Amino acid sequence: MKLWQKDKSALAAVEQFTIGRDREMDAYLAPFDVLGSLAHIAMLEKIGLLTAEELAVLQQELKNIYTEIGDGHFVLEEGVEDIHSQVELLLTRRLGEVGKKIHSGRSRNDQVLVDLKLFLRSELQTLTGEVKQLFDLLQQKSELYKDVLLPGYTHLQVAMPSSFGLWLGAYAESLVDDLTLLQGAYKVVNKNPLGSAAGYGSSFPLDRELTTHLLGFDTLNYNVVYAQMGRGKTEKTVAFALAGLGATLARLAMDACLFMNQNFGFISFPDELTTGSSIMPHKKNPDVWELIRSYGNKLQALPNEIAMMTTNLPSGYHRDLQLLKENLFPAFQVLRNCLQMAGLMLGHMQVKENILEDEKYRYLFSVEVVNKLVLEGVPFREAYRQVGMDIEKGTFVPQKEVHHTHAGSIGNLCTEQVKELMETVIKGFPFEKVEAAISRLLQ
Amino acid sequence: MKLWQKDKSALAAVEQFTIGRDREMDAYLAPFDVLGSLAHIAMLEKIGLLTAEELAVLQQELKNIYTEIGDGHFVLEEGVEDIHSQVELLLTRRLGEVGKKIHSGRSRNDQVLVDLKLFLRSELQTLTGEVKQLFDLLQQKSELYKDVLLPGYTHLQVAMPSSFGLWLGAYAESLVDDLTLLQGAYKVVNKNPLGSAAGYGSSFPLDRELTTHLLGFDTLNYNVVYAQMGRGKTEKTVAFALAGLGATLARLAMDACLFMNQNFGFISFPDELTTGSSIMPHKKNPDVWELIRSYGNKLQALPNEIAMMTTNLPSGYHRDLQLLKENLFPAFQVLRNCLQMAGLMLGHMQVKENILEDEKYRYLFSVEVVNKLVLEGVPFREAYRQVGMDIEKGTFVPQKEVHHTHAGSIGNLCTEQVKELMETVIKGFPFEKVEAAISRLLQ
Amino acid sequence: MKLWQKDKSALAAVEQFTIGRDREMDAYLAPFDVLGSLAHIAMLEKIGLLTAEELAVLQQELKNIYTEIGDGHFVLEEGVEDIHSQVELLLTRRLGEVGKKIHSGRSRNDQVLVDLKLFLRSELQTLTGEVKQLFDLLQQKSELYKDVLLPGYTHLQVAMPSSFGLWLGAYAESLVDDLTLLQGAYKVVNKNPLGSAAGYGSSFPLDRELTTHLLGFDTLNYNVVYAQMGRGKTEKTVAFALAGLGATLARLAMDACLFMNQNFGFISFPDELTTGSSIMPHKKNPDVWELIRSYGNKLQALPNEIAMMTTNLPSGYHRDLQLLKENLFPAFQVLRNCLQMAGLMLGHMQVKENILEDEKYRYLFSVEVVNKLVLEGVPFREAYRQVGMDIEKGTFVPQKEVHHTHAGSIGNLCTEQVKELMETVIKGFPFEKVEAAISRLLQ
Amino acid sequence: MKLWQKDKSALAAVEQFTIGRDREMDAYLAPFDVLGSLAHIAMLEKIGLLTAEELAVLQQELKNIYTEIGDGHFVLEEGVEDIHSQVELLLTRRLGEVGKKIHSGRSRNDQVLVDLKLFLRSELQTLTGEVKQLFDLLQQKSELYKDVLLPGYTHLQVAMPSSFGLWLGAYAESLVDDLTLLQGAYKVVNKNPLGSAAGYGSSFPLDRELTTHLLGFDTLNYNVVYAQMGRGKTEKTVAFALAGLGATLARLAMDACLFMNQNFGFISFPDELTTGSSIMPHKKNPDVWELIRSYGNKLQALPNEIAMMTTNLPSGYHRDLQLLKENLFPAFQVLRNCLQMAGLMLGHMQVKENILEDEKYRYLFSVEVVNKLVLEGVPFREAYRQVGMDIEKGTFVPQKEVHHTHAGSIGNLCTEQVKELMETVIKGFPFEKVEAAISRLLQ
Repeated sequence: MKLWQKDKSALAAVEQFTIGRDREMDAYLAPFDVLGSLAHIAMLEKIGLLTAEELAVLQQELKNIYTEIGDGHFVLEEGVEDIHSQVELLLTRRLGEVGKKIHSGRSRNDQVLVDLKLFLRSELQTLTGEVKQLFDLLQQKSELYKDVLLPGYTHLQVAMPSSFGLWLGAYAESLVDDLTLLQGAYKVVNKNPLGSAAGYGSSFPLDRELTTHLLGFDTLNYNVVYAQMGRGKTEKTVAFALAGLGATLARLAMDACLFMNQNFGFISFPDELTTGSSIMPHKKNPDVWELIRSYGNKLQALPNEIAMMTTNLPSGYHRDLQLLKENLFPAFQVLRNCLQMAGLMLGHMQVKENILEDEKYRYLFSVEVVNKLVLEGVPFREAYRQVGMDIEKGTFVPQKEVHHTHAGSIGNLCTEQVKELMETVIKGFPFEKVEAAISRLLQ
Repeated sequence: MKLWQKDKSALAAVEQFTIGRDREMDAYLAPFDVLGSLAHIAMLEKIGLLTAEELAVLQQELKNIYTEIGDGHFVLEEGVEDIHSQVELLLTRRLGEVGKKIHSGRSRNDQVLVDLKLFLRSELQTLTGEVKQLFDLLQQKSELYKDVLLPGYTHLQVAMPSSFGLWLGAYAESLVDDLTLLQGAYKVVNKNPLGSAAGYGSSFPLDRELTTHLLGFDTLNYNVVYAQMGRGKTEKTVAFALAGLGATLARLAMDACLFMNQNFGFISFPDELTTGSSIMPHKKNPDVWELIRSYGNKLQALPNEIAMMTTNLPSGYHRDLQLLKENLFPAFQVLRNCLQMAGLMLGHMQVKENILEDEKYRYLFSVEVVNKLVLEGVPFREAYRQVGMDIEKGTFVPQKEVHHTHAGSIGNLCTEQVKELMETVIKGFPFEKVEAAISRLLQ
Repeated sequence: MKLWQKDKSALAAVEQFTIGRDREMDAYLAPFDVLGSLAHIAMLEKIGLLTAEELAVLQQELKNIYTEIGDGHFVLEEGVEDIHSQVELLLTRRLGEVGKKIHSGRSRNDQVLVDLKLFLRSELQTLTGEVKQLFDLLQQKSELYKDVLLPGYTHLQVAMPSSFGLWLGAYAESLVDDLTLLQGAYKVVNKNPLGSAAGYGSSFPLDRELTTHLLGFDTLNYNVVYAQMGRGKTEKTVAFALAGLGATLARLAMDACLFMNQNFGFISFPDELTTGSSIMPHKKNPDVWELIRSYGNKLQALPNEIAMMTTNLPSGYHRDLQLLKENLFPAFQVLRNCLQMAGLMLGHMQVKENILEDEKYRYLFSVEVVNKLVLEGVPFREAYRQVGMDIEKGTFVPQKEVHHTHAGSIGNLCTEQVKELMETVIKGFPFEKVEAAISRLLQ
Repeated sequence: MKLWQKDKSALAAVEQFTIGRDREMDAYLAPFDVLGSLAHIAMLEKIGLLTAEELAVLQQELKNIYTEIGDGHFVLEEGVEDIHSQVELLLTRRLGEVGKKIHSGRSRNDQVLVDLKLFLRSELQTLTGEVKQLFDLLQQKSELYKDVLLPGYTHLQVAMPSSFGLWLGAYAESLVDDLTLLQGAYKVVNKNPLGSAAGYGSSFPLDRELTTHLLGFDTLNYNVVYAQMGRGKTEKTVAFALAGLGATLARLAMDACLFMNQNFGFISFPDELTTGSSIMPHKKNPDVWELIRSYGNKLQALPNEIAMMTTNLPSGYHRDLQLLKENLFPAFQVLRNCLQMAGLMLGHMQVKENILEDEKYRYLFSVEVVNKLVLEGVPFREAYRQVGMDIEKGTFVPQKEVHHTHAGSIGNLCTEQVKELMETVIKGFPFEKVEAAISRLLQ
């Protein structure tokens, strides 16, 4: 293969191709790689593969590196293949040969797996906090505007009275279900794959329960072949949860764009939050909402992408998996931005009063009148006929007061009950246990 | 519009177009529609919209219809629009005018929503049972073959020793995570939308907590706008869960097809379960596995289809939602078939012994030898160098015994612990509560 | 395997699982299977594997069967595996042993491949005809309403004057590009795979150029491995074309639903084509449009489904491919229905005149006024400032006449030029050559 | 809104959110933006909106900027919103007020539309060249190894003799169909949208035929509403074409990974092109192929992403469209890399001779023997029975010579004919006309 030895440019192209954007993606994993190593070396010491002294120096230096990462002083140096190698390099530079021992009893696959789980777990927690904030705002605004009526549409046709209270409260409640699904994904994530080596385990007497405990995982991915199989599957499961939130945000954004349209004109936003034109003073482009919608839909396509890239691969590691990071890793920041931007917009939304006085919403109340007659004892079909005739003769007088009292209706939003649902979901996350474990590890 | 009144064929075409396959799909919902009505009328009586006598006769006849559906004696008659109308028609035919009262305080949207939730909840329960059976079989076979070794591949290259125990156990454990996600979907499903009317609530004093209790739901979709928004979202969330199971089955099937291939030759199946040829006696086509794989992948595409059909629709009902049924409803039967067929195949699988004696797996044990030296005190790099030189000189002697002891490894499958994980998940489903409620309703 | 011989029910379940809905799908292929056989036997005779007499009787009977299929008298009998077997069975029943000879030099894979190509080719032709009809209608309505103005929206905000002529003409032109893509798919379809046997060719001296000619194909899928690889790829390529049309129809339907909404109120349809309510006389639900939109979006998800089911399968036939038929085959009828229904709706659409007189569209004309000043020699920034000040002072007088003259603008729709584009595309299909070949084959 | 004026950080966050990665994406469009402007100003001069002198200085400076872009000396300055503004800024800085005139009669939407078309057209041309190179290599290797036999698999079971010639030739032919679809997409791209303004045309007397001619477009997107509607649709159509190529490459990569696996062992690659291990000398990880497969599958998910982000948006511009660039624009480079890497790998592939001598391929030839008997006059069923009995009795002697002669079979690869198909497709692209137009514009 002499040809090859000479053809350096081809080999450089191969290297560039195989690395791709992976170094950039690895930056997301840096702090979690250190955490994984901290747990791993504590375990190595326990099973006799490190001395107590070795453990102590390694721990100290890993904590230093963790701090450096947090401070933004950590870089993946030119020529260093990945984050794991960079950490090992720093240790060896600073501590000598002992630095290499952090890799004992582990393979790179192993490290990526645990880094990924720790990263995703952390991102899901942060996301949960952001979702809760938007939820609180939606509930607050829902209560604030509970008496401001809106037309409710079915088939995009004017149908029944609705309210800003209902509309905003609906999206709050939607977030409860989104977090419920996300919690399912979190549970799949929160299991320790460390110790699976290259996906077939190891002859070292690893204590996987110990690393599980140290990293605050709920339990293990026991079977090592399954631990490896979790790559791709975990990402896709998390992507389902992101897609769920993306769908909720996208629909809210679609409603907002429609309600801002001059033909609806139900809501408006300060000039600073829209883009306009001095010669078209009515034009206030909802760019923020449009981008929330677009990002939300992009997230909806993400699980499919991951499935397409992993389906029909036989069990065992394949390099294909590397590329799953590229759209998934930045998606968390994107989603957080969208949640915050939605909050910013809703926080400054102005709602129009007295919308239903417009003549075009006249028949919105006809069902109300029928129901009222029924409650007064008129048989339904008779009441319906009577109202129909009044309308036909032009003698129909809408009663523009709405007396809905049942749970979840205009007059009874059940804000507190929905809040309890949300709190129950949030309590279902073992965030405190996880945080406590990570704190101990970094002490 | 005289033209139209004459143009019967065009109008018939419109009717056929708008109905489409919906009547066929409605058949899935029939028993659940009756259950929804049983809860609704009990509530109507409580709030004074039905007398106790009316309630009694309606209950009796609805139970009769429920039995007829179970016996296969229920048909959606020609010219009857949907399942709700058919049930009302039967009641009116048998009981007179009182039959119409089951519709009071409800809209069709409302009925479809609750039927859908009850149907999906029931299907998810059945599915859970089928998953558990396959799980048990996988665990049993994993234990049975725990000492039969296999080559483990990474990058599809021979890498490390594995075992049938590990391989089969991995898929068992995969089903635990699949059910975890499915449970997240179940929780989203198990909330009562009944009482949301056309998606904007009603002026009737509906007691939604009562129907929630009667139908065994965990809680309500409180906000009526959100209850309606659940249409599409619920289906997609369930589809995520089905897609997860589909992916596991598809990957198992891919492995099975590969392992049956003559170049691998690790497993075989009785002739009755494969298709062959008398002139190609080695050819045993794995049609069952191939179809499991294909159905599994089709399921993986389902959430995307639902997302594509619902995204960017403003809030409120749209007729678009009708078509979501067509690929989703039959998917449960398909998935159950796949689970059963996978079980049938695995139940009759023959595994090859002594696979690793083949020369091509010779270097599979080199990592083992390195690790053994390390455990004996040789530094890793030295051990690695030593084994590398033995291999180069041709003096490498693989030690074909595997001593893996850590949790989840070849010698320690943790079958019991994984079983406990599964049982914990299954206990998280409120199946008993649900069944008890349905039983009470039908008593 | 005695156990198996007894366990009839399990084996019946396996058979049912492997057949699935394939018999139902095979019905779509029946006439094309006969055409493929007619070409194949003519070739067999030429290479000496059939006598002229045998050919003559087989041809006569195959033509009879073709007629029976057309008349609806052909059934796939109970217990007969597929369409190919059914045709062979009929021939053998009627002609004796010679009937079996139609299979010489072919495999079932081969037959499915050519049937599929002939079926898809035929469906694409029919579809092209339907698309052309909708195109003509859109152009006709575009011309009819070319002077009726509409507000044009960007960001869903009132922006610039538009017209019904522009709006309808845009969808006509969209169909030109959709057919352009469809023609690309047609070219991929219109190549002969017959003679590839099981995907690796045959030792028979088949004359593949002859069958190519007889079936009117443009050329061959030469390489037999590629001919087999076309399974799945052909379906996906066609699905791209269907998805393109689906997207156009879905967007048109979205516009129509919005324009029918009472807040817009730009268009309306006769009662017979909408669903309404006597107590909500303004409510005219656009069910037909909503279903067109939903079907269109379902079509948009189809290519992804096919990709998901075929990706990462190694080359060579797999049974997975069987299931691709289920959503693809009925899609053609669905799309034809949607095209016809869109035509029916547009054919009876009523448009509102004088929409722009509404005060909310006042500033729609501000850009026009700026441009007018510019054309009169005022520098753009000065003209812009001037109009902005008039608006601010309330002295702005919109000039509600639109003088757009450039190609493709309100005043110059270029209907003829777009029609020419369409005709050029349609001339690019070799429909006449194909029809002539099929006629000769059936003579 | 005083609050806002103070809250600078919130407004900065909004700005960052709305810009996102768009500036990075705009860099792809820079040279095309200059080309679009060159055509636009020539037209402005013709219709009297620029003087001949103004035109001359603007042309000169735009050409300078074009050169600077090519030399890598062009940057999007901090605070400049987009590429269009940057170009205008440079012109104004260098030429004064006249620089602003390039925007007359255009809107930003207009500019993005034409830039996008020019960019995509150029990328598709480059891609075509790369595809052709891989095609040539596949054909060359197919001829080189035409006599080296391989087992052919169906259902992943050993079935019939195949050859490296067939295998490699199949992928060459696949590229012909991929380019056919890509040509369909190219035709959709190669139409001029310039002059559509904000999607509703303009009162300026723009000469759109002239810019069409100057930019070398085949024709116009006539209807201005349709021109705008092309945004999203064009990208998706191109994505279909990329997905087709991605699928072909992914399948080739899957085959290669399988054939490199030790159980198959059909092909190998030099050490420099694989990753290995000194203690597992047989392990040669096909990372390059795995990444080609993964990128190919990612491309397969791209059309779906675009569809998800654009479906159900009413006609007219929406900011959502901005985000379509992020995965699409870099995809061209990715795909070119994959094509080149596949070429590099195939260029250095070593194939194993005498594969079929292995005992496990013994029955591969049984169909050959049956066919031979048939050609000698033995009825098929008798021949089949005879061979089956020989196999059963163990007296079957495979004749390991393959005499396939028909078009596209082992012995008759039709390399020349397939090459002609490719050349016909390539001639169908109007590359020369386009290049000539661009050259004239830059002269």
